[in-house]
Amino acid sequence: MILQNEIKMTNRTRIFPFLFLAVLLIFNSGCRSNDSKEQPVATSASVNDDPLPSWNETGHKKAIISFVEKITKEGSADFVPVAERIATFDNDGTLWSEQPMYFQFIFTFDRIKAMAPLHPEWKNKQPFKAALEGDYKLVMESGADAINALVMAVSQGYTSNEFAQIVKDWLETAKHPTTGKLYTEMVFQPMVELLEYLRANGFKTYIVSGGGVEFMRPFTEKAYGIPPEQVIGTSFKMKFEMQDGKPEIVQIPEVNFVNDNDGKPIGIFQYIGRRPIAAFGNSDGDLEMLQYTTSGSGLRFGALVHHTDAEREWAYDRKSPFGHLDKALDEAKAKGWTLIDMKNDWKIVYAFEMN
Amino acid sequence: MILQNEIKMTNRTRIFPFLFLAVLLIFNSGCRSNDSKEQPVATSASVNDDPLPSWNETGHKKAIISFVEKITKEGSADFVPVAERIATFDNDGTLWSEQPMYFQFIFTFDRIKAMAPLHPEWKNKQPFKAALEGDYKLVMESGADAINALVMAVSQGYTSNEFAQIVKDWLETAKHPTTGKLYTEMVFQPMVELLEYLRANGFKTYIVSGGGVEFMRPFTEKAYGIPPEQVIGTSFKMKFEMQDGKPEIVQIPEVNFVNDNDGKPIGIFQYIGRRPIAAFGNSDGDLEMLQYTTSGSGLRFGALVHHTDAEREWAYDRKSPFGHLDKALDEAKAKGWTLIDMKNDWKIVYAFEMN
Repeated sequence: MILQNEIKMTNRTRIFPFLFLAVLLIFNSGCRSNDSKEQPVATSASVNDDPLPSWNETGHKKAIISFVEKITKEGSADFVPVAERIATFDNDGTLWSEQPMYFQFIFTFDRIKAMAPLHPEWKNKQPFKAALEGDYKLVMESGADAINALVMAVSQGYTSNEFAQIVKDWLETAKHPTTGKLYTEMVFQPMVELLEYLRANGFKTYIVSGGGVEFMRPFTEKAYGIPPEQVIGTSFKMKFEMQDGKPEIVQIPEVNFVNDNDGKPIGIFQYIGRRPIAAFGNSDGDLEMLQYTTSGSGLRFGALVHHTDAEREWAYDRKSPFGHLDKALDEAKAKGWTLIDMKNDWKIVYAFEMN
Repeated sequence: MILQNEIKMTNRTRIFPFLFLAVLLIFNSGCRSNDSKEQPVATSASVNDDPLPSWNETGHKKAIISFVEKITKEGSADFVPVAERIATFDNDGTLWSEQPMYFQFIFTFDRIKAMAPLHPEWKNKQPFKAALEGDYKLVMESGADAINALVMAVSQGYTSNEFAQIVKDWLETAKHPTTGKLYTEMVFQPMVELLEYLRANGFKTYIVSGGGVEFMRPFTEKAYGIPPEQVIGTSFKMKFEMQDGKPEIVQIPEVNFVNDNDGKPIGIFQYIGRRPIAAFGNSDGDLEMLQYTTSGSGLRFGALVHHTDAEREWAYDRKSPFGHLDKALDEAKAKGWTLIDMKNDWKIVYAFEMN
């Protein structure tokens, strides 16, 4: 994700100037303090027979159900054995919101501030000084290595369990700057239902995200029903180390794998070893995953969540720095991938709308 | 495995001089041509109530069953939720034999010979020339890079499906040099039963091997009931590439990850994201995996398959180049890990003994 600058320039790396302008605007305006109840976000919206109750009765919902019915019908030409029912999902912008910036970025800035008392040297050391002073413009001008330094600083030195707890604590308390909701309340209820529906039909559901794997694993099981071993993401290198006689896995400040763009099908191959039969994304970072998935033999399903709802969520595609959707939008139209229209296809976006 | 020289010297890299002496002896004596029937190797030995019918009624069998009964007993202090029931298994020497050398090595030499007609340049290019002429001593003297070149040469340029088919074809026809059996007939029936028993009790079973992941995935589902996505191994780097308009994942001749020694717990963390509660190995290459597994909180199970049966399989430990078991043997005794005694604990070693 924000580490991929070390490998090559991609959409996500080009967004920083926009990001920090956005950050300035948001943080200067202060966070709303809407009280958000701690409600379960991953439960079904309904107990009736409709497997996708938060979806409107549009052609896209029918296309999903038709695909699942075909590949599960034994004896049919389209039948796919359970073992091969692999479905992969991008996370940011596909399973939860990604505006005004990837939630992991907000986490990183929050952590830098929270950790500052333990790092008095940060006051006089860039890019930490700038981050602490809210001078995001200066952080940006310092370049990709400086930004990577911030991201790595918030996870280095912790054991895996310790870092997971930090993420959990943040997710239980931090509020989104414009909705005032917990970040885990901003998962898309229709997509949670889709995940459950696929699993009920024998699918193994995976997250395949440019986000950091250690940031995602602490919450994906509760939010999406996806266990840690089915989360593929960008990762750091690790080392094995004895701490007080107990072996622990700790991070090395070096990028291991950037799971975005062509990294997505590569990650899928290295972790899963099979070509998925269905893939869901929302940006150009998902293009290669959808190409890889839909070009396998037999019936395949490729879909993009199109952010068309400025009222309930956000509306953006070709011009957005986050979730930039341009090339993949053209290819979706050319290849007949399903373009999930958030505004028209989804009865609700977030579970809290039901209250 | 044989690629890890690029990272550091480990047991497996020190064994090559021994290996090639062994190869010379074996290949010079010619392969036995015992006819081996193509029988299923992964079926249970019995349909009675005993979950481990190929195990003798020793303390080690009782220890395994006692562990499983304790961690599955709801309400008990030792209870472990299903999601956390992760068991990891080394492959070579733990789930199938590894003498007179790792079976993947035999595959590599066989493939170099089979591919030679398509590579006339190999006749005059080392280390291929030496490999083709059976001059393994010269291959060895050429060093680790030369050996890596052989291993990479047999998988480069193929799509993942193509390479998987090559492995499958080899496993269906190639015979072990001393037993004359198919290599997949040399899986350990007691361990296949153990895998099934653990899965029946809610475990996810993983292979965590120094072997190449692309060599293992084509046969682990049939042989052990372990799907490709639960096989963690040594891997090459990959690239995403369009071939006639179809996206494929193909190898780059560069090592991605060496899944041996401390690489095992690192691989476990990166792929699974949880500390296993049970781990099974047989050599010093498994030491860190067992340390990592058994040092977690709550009840844990660590075991080593000790090769003590010169008659039915092989007897070796501290002095063997393959499956070198020295430090881990001492630590097993010191820490009370279960030392599975092949000769005394196993009623049969291979399923074909039942015929």
